[in-house]
Amino acid sequence: MSSARTEIRFTGSGGQGIILIGYITGKAASIYANLHATLTQNYGPESRGGASSTQLVISREPIFYPNISRPDILVAMSQEGYTKYKNELKPDGIILIEQNLVKITKSKSDIKTVSVPATQLAEKLGKKIVANLVMLGFLIGQTKVLSKDTVEKAIKTSVPKGTEELNLKAFRIGYEYKNKNN
Amino acid sequence: MSSARTEIRFTGSGGQGIILIGYITGKAASIYANLHATLTQNYGPESRGGASSTQLVISREPIFYPNISRPDILVAMSQEGYTKYKNELKPDGIILIEQNLVKITKSKSDIKTVSVPATQLAEKLGKKIVANLVMLGFLIGQTKVLSKDTVEKAIKTSVPKGTEELNLKAFRIGYEYKNKNN
Repeated sequence: MSSARTEIRFTGSGGQGIILIGYITGKAASIYANLHATLTQNYGPESRGGASSTQLVISREPIFYPNISRPDILVAMSQEGYTKYKNELKPDGIILIEQNLVKITKSKSDIKTVSVPATQLAEKLGKKIVANLVMLGFLIGQTKVLSKDTVEKAIKTSVPKGTEELNLKAFRIGYEYKNKNN
Repeated sequence: MSSARTEIRFTGSGGQGIILIGYITGKAASIYANLHATLTQNYGPESRGGASSTQLVISREPIFYPNISRPDILVAMSQEGYTKYKNELKPDGIILIEQNLVKITKSKSDIKTVSVPATQLAEKLGKKIVANLVMLGFLIGQTKVLSKDTVEKAIKTSVPKGTEELNLKAFRIGYEYKNKNN
């Protein structure tokens, strides 16, 4: 991690497992990378329709203010989440989108945006439900916000027993994926 | 909800879906019951072994302090979580445990404890993985912290598509379950 505090927003639709990947990232940071992390859930009115958004702060110092205002990273697995949050990013931020679920639209500034067909890659594994883990792998591969190894440790202790290998496989596919948008 | 602020701690093992039921409860409160809710994740060292704990605050007023110190309710789906957190409860608090995963031990005070064989009931539905939803139903049935209807709405928009009915069924089984410990 290059800066003292990194703010990440994860957003998507209900049931995509967005909060799980936020949780795993925070766990990797705090338990396996000796950083501090808080994951906070504020329920906006958009949750009514099934939109889901969670905020993660990772820091070298203890975190007294867990809310985020200008994230460094936005992970968007739904159009709604992308549209709603893309303009809050820092100018040097990065947006990671699910290629087949999110259409890129014009932003205020020239924020770097990279995409991965997470759902499609998960389907190749026979389990669409692990698209979130593909996205998590892509996040780590593209941003290097944490090491691959620390995140893999956190995955192993966070997913249902018996699904560890499937989830790790999905994670690695996302990690290795080369973004073609840039 | 009887008091102005209710604090709930959900605890269990990694992969049990503890955070999901905390998330759903908060969503029901804030989106469907017009209350305020924050769900916060602090990663204690116990997370290393795969223990999972999340804190939910539900309030009639906006929440400025999302941390909890003396919960009203503890939901424990693992022995470790039960043992670690049972003594932090308010004297008039209530503990809900997974009957076959948690053994009741002596507490500082005479905290009311109720139990449900959530995993076993979920297995009868053919899906052990929805034990968390059985536990959520039991929580709502026993404490009436929110109405059954509001929580069902939140379930529908929070679980993976195609699994809504299964999850609602699990929730209702837990809701109807009559605790035999008391």
